[in-house]
Amino acid sequence: MRNLRTTDQFVEAILRQDRAALAQGITLIESNARKHFSPAQELVKAIYPYSGKSIRIGITGVPGAGKSTFIEALGMYLCRQGHKVAVLAIDPSSTLSGGSILGDKTRMEELSKEKNAFIRPSPSQGKLGGVHRKTRETMFLCEAAGFDVIIVETVGVGQGETIVKGMVDVFLLLALTGAGDDLQGIKKGIIELADLICINKADGDNRRKAEKTKVEYEGFLHFLQPSTEGWSPTVMTCSALYNENIDELWRNIQDYEAFSKRTHAFTLKRRQQMKTWLNAMISDYLHDSFYGKEQIRERINKVEIEVVQGDCTVSEAVEQLILAYEESFK
Amino acid sequence: MRNLRTTDQFVEAILRQDRAALAQGITLIESNARKHFSPAQELVKAIYPYSGKSIRIGITGVPGAGKSTFIEALGMYLCRQGHKVAVLAIDPSSTLSGGSILGDKTRMEELSKEKNAFIRPSPSQGKLGGVHRKTRETMFLCEAAGFDVIIVETVGVGQGETIVKGMVDVFLLLALTGAGDDLQGIKKGIIELADLICINKADGDNRRKAEKTKVEYEGFLHFLQPSTEGWSPTVMTCSALYNENIDELWRNIQDYEAFSKRTHAFTLKRRQQMKTWLNAMISDYLHDSFYGKEQIRERINKVEIEVVQGDCTVSEAVEQLILAYEESFK
Repeated sequence: MRNLRTTDQFVEAILRQDRAALAQGITLIESNARKHFSPAQELVKAIYPYSGKSIRIGITGVPGAGKSTFIEALGMYLCRQGHKVAVLAIDPSSTLSGGSILGDKTRMEELSKEKNAFIRPSPSQGKLGGVHRKTRETMFLCEAAGFDVIIVETVGVGQGETIVKGMVDVFLLLALTGAGDDLQGIKKGIIELADLICINKADGDNRRKAEKTKVEYEGFLHFLQPSTEGWSPTVMTCSALYNENIDELWRNIQDYEAFSKRTHAFTLKRRQQMKTWLNAMISDYLHDSFYGKEQIRERINKVEIEVVQGDCTVSEAVEQLILAYEESFK
Repeated sequence: MRNLRTTDQFVEAILRQDRAALAQGITLIESNARKHFSPAQELVKAIYPYSGKSIRIGITGVPGAGKSTFIEALGMYLCRQGHKVAVLAIDPSSTLSGGSILGDKTRMEELSKEKNAFIRPSPSQGKLGGVHRKTRETMFLCEAAGFDVIIVETVGVGQGETIVKGMVDVFLLLALTGAGDDLQGIKKGIIELADLICINKADGDNRRKAEKTKVEYEGFLHFLQPSTEGWSPTVMTCSALYNENIDELWRNIQDYEAFSKRTHAFTLKRRQQMKTWLNAMISDYLHDSFYGKEQIRERINKVEIEVVQGDCTVSEAVEQLILAYEESFK
């Protein structure tokens, strides 16, 4: 990143929806270089007042659920309606492998050529807390650049869903037809995060099966607490491939938005998300600070064995480790 | 606690199953007085090698599921079979209210008079982490005193289930007949913790409904990942009031025990539980240490507001708070 813009130049360019500036700003935020941290934070701070004017949609689904086709169909539909759509991704597996679910833009060929759409792959590498922060801050930049629909995608692995759920206004589960064995592919706990469940590939011979699955999901949801107080998650079918029911999906999202704005859940959730994020980052920091200390790293495995063998109690072990930790600051 | 025994005296008396010594040992562990901490930890350490020779059973269920009657029926059945049964409780609500779900021994009138049974209410007051530690350590003492079946009970509120799940070998959900609306009373996520689900009150007119509920639970479990790799949670009905199927319940528990010992899941789980407990206590300590600092308490609310208003970024806020925290040790 040579010829880095000043914060003012960045803000000015992003606000007039300059895509090159937006992309460069995101690259700055994603940088792991220490020297980029301060200018990146200055940028986020300067941009923040212009952020927030969007509906943030989280999407998850098992591999094979057709997320790319679905996001492309929804994205194209929204662009045709005059919206500006940014697609971001969180891929916890990429933090390990360095790969990325959205690395290949050809996954959404049509949408990636659309001038009112902006697709950004998951920030690869770095720790999960960092990826979390970077995606959130990227979202703020996109909103300031006029994108009024933000789609954050995640795959059904690791902690992706919880992280995405914690940064969006509405969380959508993209599911497949088939019950029982097929549904086991969905990680436990995911369904109860969903505000909206959409069964994809409801076309041709599959249509009836999809309707059956819809009923099964509705029965299943009956057992769960609603993700938002007073809201019964909507279950619907669609065919992203044939562009069927994409308009109904958007109506359902807007219904949820209207509902949550009416009950003030919308604003409260966003505020709570900021606080939760702050405290999660503190928690991450404390954890890393503790387990990162040489004095702790040297002892922790030994102490764990001692505890299992009964050579010291858990309380004694904690006391001993904490003492070593606090000594390290002196 | 005057005339406190020495650690050696405690160990000797507990090993020869002296109930007064056991009760006094537990009182020592439960004490919040600073001067009792060291002798309590010495006792736990000295007792630990004699602990572990039991099956630890966690039991949860909604209020009204008949937990007291059920535990009394199971406990009496086991005592008649020659077992020694200790009943402990974790009640997250008691840490707030100072009350306790087992405060009233008359809840299990017959069992409380049985010489091979030992009932101990939840340690009231104190913080959840402390309650967790105290119940675990009490369990070790009971095992050393010859109790070979430990039942840890919790009510379906707060974090009770997760804590109990983290200290037992097998986790049992006591459920009621009736599906749909009734089942909503069960906190989401509880069912997937269960190794065994027992639908109580399957007597009289309710018997057929109970069988129906059993089938519904089996269908529901189909959607969830098993709590133990390779184990399909058993669903059964019983009537604690009429002592029906209590023998089958015990057989199911023994089946699970045999299964998990064969696959080594039993030992691995116990080891993992100790490590998880250690790290959870560290995490608790760090959290308390951070949020307990005057320097943090003075700032945190202000910083949260600043973050929501955009006066500083989350990263800046974290950096600022951590700096204040680390300064406090110098």
